[in-house]
Amino acid sequence: MPVNVLFAASPDRWTTYETPLKRAFSEAALDVNLATDIVPEQVDYIVYAPNSDLQDFTPYTRTKAVLNLWAGVEGIVDNPTLTQPLARMVDNGLTRGMVEWVTGHTLRHHLNTDLHVLNQDGVWRKEVPPLACDRPVTILGLGTLGQACGESLANLGFPVTGWSRSQKDAPGITCLSGETGLQKALSTAQILILLLPHTPDTENVLNAETLAQMPKGAIIINPGRGPLIDDEALLKALDTEQIGHATLDVFRTEPLPASHPYWAHPRVTVTPHIASETRPASASRVIAENIRRGEAGKPFLHLVNRDLGY
Amino acid sequence: MPVNVLFAASPDRWTTYETPLKRAFSEAALDVNLATDIVPEQVDYIVYAPNSDLQDFTPYTRTKAVLNLWAGVEGIVDNPTLTQPLARMVDNGLTRGMVEWVTGHTLRHHLNTDLHVLNQDGVWRKEVPPLACDRPVTILGLGTLGQACGESLANLGFPVTGWSRSQKDAPGITCLSGETGLQKALSTAQILILLLPHTPDTENVLNAETLAQMPKGAIIINPGRGPLIDDEALLKALDTEQIGHATLDVFRTEPLPASHPYWAHPRVTVTPHIASETRPASASRVIAENIRRGEAGKPFLHLVNRDLGY
Repeated sequence: MPVNVLFAASPDRWTTYETPLKRAFSEAALDVNLATDIVPEQVDYIVYAPNSDLQDFTPYTRTKAVLNLWAGVEGIVDNPTLTQPLARMVDNGLTRGMVEWVTGHTLRHHLNTDLHVLNQDGVWRKEVPPLACDRPVTILGLGTLGQACGESLANLGFPVTGWSRSQKDAPGITCLSGETGLQKALSTAQILILLLPHTPDTENVLNAETLAQMPKGAIIINPGRGPLIDDEALLKALDTEQIGHATLDVFRTEPLPASHPYWAHPRVTVTPHIASETRPASASRVIAENIRRGEAGKPFLHLVNRDLGY
Repeated sequence: MPVNVLFAASPDRWTTYETPLKRAFSEAALDVNLATDIVPEQVDYIVYAPNSDLQDFTPYTRTKAVLNLWAGVEGIVDNPTLTQPLARMVDNGLTRGMVEWVTGHTLRHHLNTDLHVLNQDGVWRKEVPPLACDRPVTILGLGTLGQACGESLANLGFPVTGWSRSQKDAPGITCLSGETGLQKALSTAQILILLLPHTPDTENVLNAETLAQMPKGAIIINPGRGPLIDDEALLKALDTEQIGHATLDVFRTEPLPASHPYWAHPRVTVTPHIASETRPASASRVIAENIRRGEAGKPFLHLVNRDLGY
């Protein structure tokens, strides 16, 4: 008897994922019936994207798990009809992509490469930056992504401080937690990287008060979630040069409307939510591994803690 | 009896180096008379920069070593009056600075951050780059700098090929050598980094023929030496888009004249020889260590092979 796997995401995702998912199931020796329409009562697993039409999980009575295609689970985690276990996507390719983007933009600001990229005018601007060992970097959020980015930056010589709600321990990173820890983590951050999940507790974690706790001229890099930042407070801090520059990859509304003041601000770089894009081949292997585990009666990987919201 | 150390470099270097050198000598417990004018016959060591007025080494009959402040030794290595041992600067801070610059500009091209930095115009350009593991990088030159840069890029997941005249072995780097090796190293290089010394053999190593051996649209990054590139051939290859972009930090004439076509070319980024700048504190410790070795009758570090020219 094949395992019935319902693919519940937008039609263009089906085009992208059908082949890599079937390949991953076959590589994992799973007998799977993968389809976009299966009678709810017969569905064993749901491969899910939060923008799917499927919002009522009540009739999926034998479904063993909902396997999210994305790392973010806002838009599903609060769904009261969802009683089945929910797994986030934790894709190694996604982590590598994030590490590359964060390391690249941290070095871009550290070396001030924009000075040269934007001014090819014949003027020899010989300004030598300090070494990375003299440029303290702070990462808010020490999940899989935050720890991997911290390790990469520590390898390059940056002194890395990491902050998380509950105390963590990560090699090469000075780990802080709690309210006092946050203040300390912000106070030394010449470059601040936001990799927290979006929860009611993290909404607007960067606001007028916390921005003022940072060193004058600090850099903000946000590849995490748009609502982590109070946009109005950030714009004000950029105008007073309390914040030297912000490179933002995520926003409350995406695509960021062309009229948004971030686009026109001389000290903001907007990038189009590309820091961490799930690559279909590696994501499909993660989905297949979780189905293999479910069928073998083993615990699922990357289960969401519904109380914490991530 | 103090050791007589002559400082032979431009006056502004003296301003920069006097204090850190004296600090380093004191830390090394060396009794040193450091000055910019000492009778040649009484000089024990010369701290030297190739743009110094001192060009005739004949009267320095008791000098045990000439300690170069820079990594490059062109401008002194061929001086026929120099019979004393010559040591290059191999400064850990210099290596770290080079690793940061090379890693930063490699990621800049890999992620195509210029697309966003140069176009903050309200258009959401969602182009996701491949992962580093799908972006082969080649480094020409596997000395201290080349190996350190290769290691940093391999840590980020790039497949790194390294080429040197004589076969080397470096962890995480596919090492090639010789003429056939060079052709192979160029043929796979989506990003090429030049870290060869400048010798008669390496002059114009990038020329019309070798540029044509690279994949269409490849990126050139040159933090090594200006004369490694045949400038006219590179400009032609950029015009035909055989080469996608060149980021150049070193030039035959520096500062690069404002009228040079590199400044105006849309696919060239000029940076003002900042990839690897000696930091006085760490360089002074290297000089002190070599004087300590000389006084203790031990072999000098980083001696130049005068036949090879580096």
